[in-house]
Amino acid sequence: MHTTQKSEPLPTEATAVIVGAGYAGLSAALALHDAGIDVVVLEGSERVGGRVHTEVVTQLDGLVIDHGGQWVGPTQTRLLALAERFGCPTFPTYNHGTHLELWSDGVCRPFRGAGPVDGAGVAAYEAATEAIDALAASVDLTQPWATPGLGAWDSQTVQTYLDHTVTDPDARTRLGLAVQGVWTVEPRDISLFHFLFYVASAGGFEQLMETEGCAQERRFSAGAQSVASAIAAHLGDRVHLGAPVQHIEVLDDGRVRVDTGRGQLHATRVVVATTPAAALRIHHTPELPQARNRWLERSPMGDVAKIHTVYETPFWRDSGLSGEATVYGDHSVGVVFDNSPSDGRLGVLVSFVYAERQHRWSQLPEPERRQDVLRTLGLLFGEQAQSPLYYTEKNWPEDPWARGGYAANPAPGVWLEHGRAGWRTACGPLHWAGTETSSVWNGYIDGAIASGQRAAAEIQAALR
Amino acid sequence: MHTTQKSEPLPTEATAVIVGAGYAGLSAALALHDAGIDVVVLEGSERVGGRVHTEVVTQLDGLVIDHGGQWVGPTQTRLLALAERFGCPTFPTYNHGTHLELWSDGVCRPFRGAGPVDGAGVAAYEAATEAIDALAASVDLTQPWATPGLGAWDSQTVQTYLDHTVTDPDARTRLGLAVQGVWTVEPRDISLFHFLFYVASAGGFEQLMETEGCAQERRFSAGAQSVASAIAAHLGDRVHLGAPVQHIEVLDDGRVRVDTGRGQLHATRVVVATTPAAALRIHHTPELPQARNRWLERSPMGDVAKIHTVYETPFWRDSGLSGEATVYGDHSVGVVFDNSPSDGRLGVLVSFVYAERQHRWSQLPEPERRQDVLRTLGLLFGEQAQSPLYYTEKNWPEDPWARGGYAANPAPGVWLEHGRAGWRTACGPLHWAGTETSSVWNGYIDGAIASGQRAAAEIQAALR
Repeated sequence: MHTTQKSEPLPTEATAVIVGAGYAGLSAALALHDAGIDVVVLEGSERVGGRVHTEVVTQLDGLVIDHGGQWVGPTQTRLLALAERFGCPTFPTYNHGTHLELWSDGVCRPFRGAGPVDGAGVAAYEAATEAIDALAASVDLTQPWATPGLGAWDSQTVQTYLDHTVTDPDARTRLGLAVQGVWTVEPRDISLFHFLFYVASAGGFEQLMETEGCAQERRFSAGAQSVASAIAAHLGDRVHLGAPVQHIEVLDDGRVRVDTGRGQLHATRVVVATTPAAALRIHHTPELPQARNRWLERSPMGDVAKIHTVYETPFWRDSGLSGEATVYGDHSVGVVFDNSPSDGRLGVLVSFVYAERQHRWSQLPEPERRQDVLRTLGLLFGEQAQSPLYYTEKNWPEDPWARGGYAANPAPGVWLEHGRAGWRTACGPLHWAGTETSSVWNGYIDGAIASGQRAAAEIQAALR
Repeated sequence: MHTTQKSEPLPTEATAVIVGAGYAGLSAALALHDAGIDVVVLEGSERVGGRVHTEVVTQLDGLVIDHGGQWVGPTQTRLLALAERFGCPTFPTYNHGTHLELWSDGVCRPFRGAGPVDGAGVAAYEAATEAIDALAASVDLTQPWATPGLGAWDSQTVQTYLDHTVTDPDARTRLGLAVQGVWTVEPRDISLFHFLFYVASAGGFEQLMETEGCAQERRFSAGAQSVASAIAAHLGDRVHLGAPVQHIEVLDDGRVRVDTGRGQLHATRVVVATTPAAALRIHHTPELPQARNRWLERSPMGDVAKIHTVYETPFWRDSGLSGEATVYGDHSVGVVFDNSPSDGRLGVLVSFVYAERQHRWSQLPEPERRQDVLRTLGLLFGEQAQSPLYYTEKNWPEDPWARGGYAANPAPGVWLEHGRAGWRTACGPLHWAGTETSSVWNGYIDGAIASGQRAAAEIQAALR
């Protein structure tokens, strides 16, 4: 999907070297390139996009499948602006009809879409999300360490918070799945403060959860990687694939030497725009400051797999179903969405497997993984759902570059102890990007773009 | 302190390759060597001992200083047995006279040693440690994931537990320093379950905290590295320094290729016996299983610095002081011990700086770091303490091999989610050692030895 060849030799010099060709790195490179600054992007894998990965399935007449980040919402203005600049059309996520819920009693219940919101624990759930929004409203997004409640909130897990504030067990179950769905971890794995920060960075809990007017509103006609690929094509031979950065050395003269698997470059400034898990596997001379190391070491990636099943038609729509479902109880699948192409010429469901469910599911051999997913889809959408034309899965913890997804989640204590110095403060000529370093839409494509643009602005200011 | 030269070429083959020449790696190698198995130890740094690091100060007539682990207690039978085998004498930690406490009001108070235990919050502290011991008694040390209370305990931080069970603020302050002192982190940074597991693995809270009959009972005349150095000398040219392992590949035939900075070896079995932080920076082909990766990624190292100050005499003894002190409030130093040589020919104090205190202190320039420590020692032991003959510090997070100390502390959720598969289960021909993988004296030298001996037993069983 873009033109740069692996075999092209690396240049030996650049004003700015960007490590990683995900949305953060490409956005940093684009902003610097727009400003007339000589930039080189080094990507370890053989494609751009990072945690956004579009596959075009030729045997299905060019069906576009998004294995990673895929949606865009109306307040994700940076991503929308790039999509417009590079002519990448979007279309509304299919959102008509009845959503389903599958509970541990094995019964499928309709939920929303076809009428008023109801169901066990819904009122208590709504009250809890309002309470969460009220707490999140006081988070300082640009200086999170200055948030008044930081000390108490960063000393506990989200599970502790839920245990002490939500008495309705069904509401707790709903909130548990919401945490899995948005953070891809269990509520015990994540600092309450980071959870509140993340909610605030998106503009509220509803933004994270909903479709219309929210984060899941629209999809990209050519897949969510299309914007990244267009940026890379625009940058042309400045983007080098198959060039994993192994070692970054800040030299005595203040310049930086970057060693890759196929040659080295010298640069004035470097942006590391990988996931935290990949960043901490790059060797540094001198060692990074302790605060930055600890930030990276204590922000593990979440665990998610996306499974696409393709059918001749979106047959569930004929029964008045939206294709959206939430699954509680002893299933691997947590959430399902209609991911069909805009013209509906094929039916596509995407199933998400998160957190502990992913840990169990990923241990199974492939035929059992498939059967496990299809069993749940059958309970939701009937027998037809069990016989897809095509089945494909992407298990993000196995991805050697991302090492997990969607994002990294700081454990309790990390923001409090290392937020100020370790989150995104440049270390001399080394700058940091990646959605984890964003004050807006942290964990999302839009946050990645914001982080790249911020890092580029830091470099422009430094070079002035 | 031992004979192997860096310049010696590496062998190309060994039955077992051990990565890391700390106590875990050396104990594994010794057990295999004793059993007649061909073993090679690869150590990245230029010395053996790992987190146990003895310096002999020539300008102070050969004074022995332990920058890392230093004590041995009566139930640490593996370390005592090796010390006896290799003829490394020990002597009792100086423990006469009055201990001191320095509180945030700036007043020094005597504490224990010279009379009954008293002081603000002591009764509530004792009650809390009894409650902790009662919980710890139910921990399953060999299969921690089978512990009945695991779910609730691994979903919360120690801070949450203290907030909900200890009402006396002075007792909470005491417990906070105890957590700093033993785990080198803040109570918010650590899973309650891991905390209980660690207590259980030592045989109870008192074992961790006390001197006589407990973990701090004795010291090594030639320093705590002396046993490691003796093992290395016994293994002779099987131990290679300056050979950092960068890549471990399990080949199609089941054998393992180990790449170091200076050549590669083939082995039947490999033991990785580094800290978790160092282990996750070794590249693996194929990638490690997710559970092991997540275990490593979510078990960050603690933060500790040890500062030694040397005086002409242990002058505090003349005033009836033991040299032991605990420091609350706005000081970097948390705990002080008399670390003089057994003959008392010089006076030595060792000051510990932990967790958040370490984060602040390590940001200071060296003269201010020194002044900060000496100011506290002056308040405790008088003006004389402010003018040492010699000052030396070891800041463990800066150590490029250990990357922190004393040990790694799993965050909430890690034991529950990845304990069974990720803690120490061998991955094919790859075995795991290091004190973090021990069921006894986890975090201590004795635990490191136990872990190495277990890994060696696994290999012997596999080769049989």
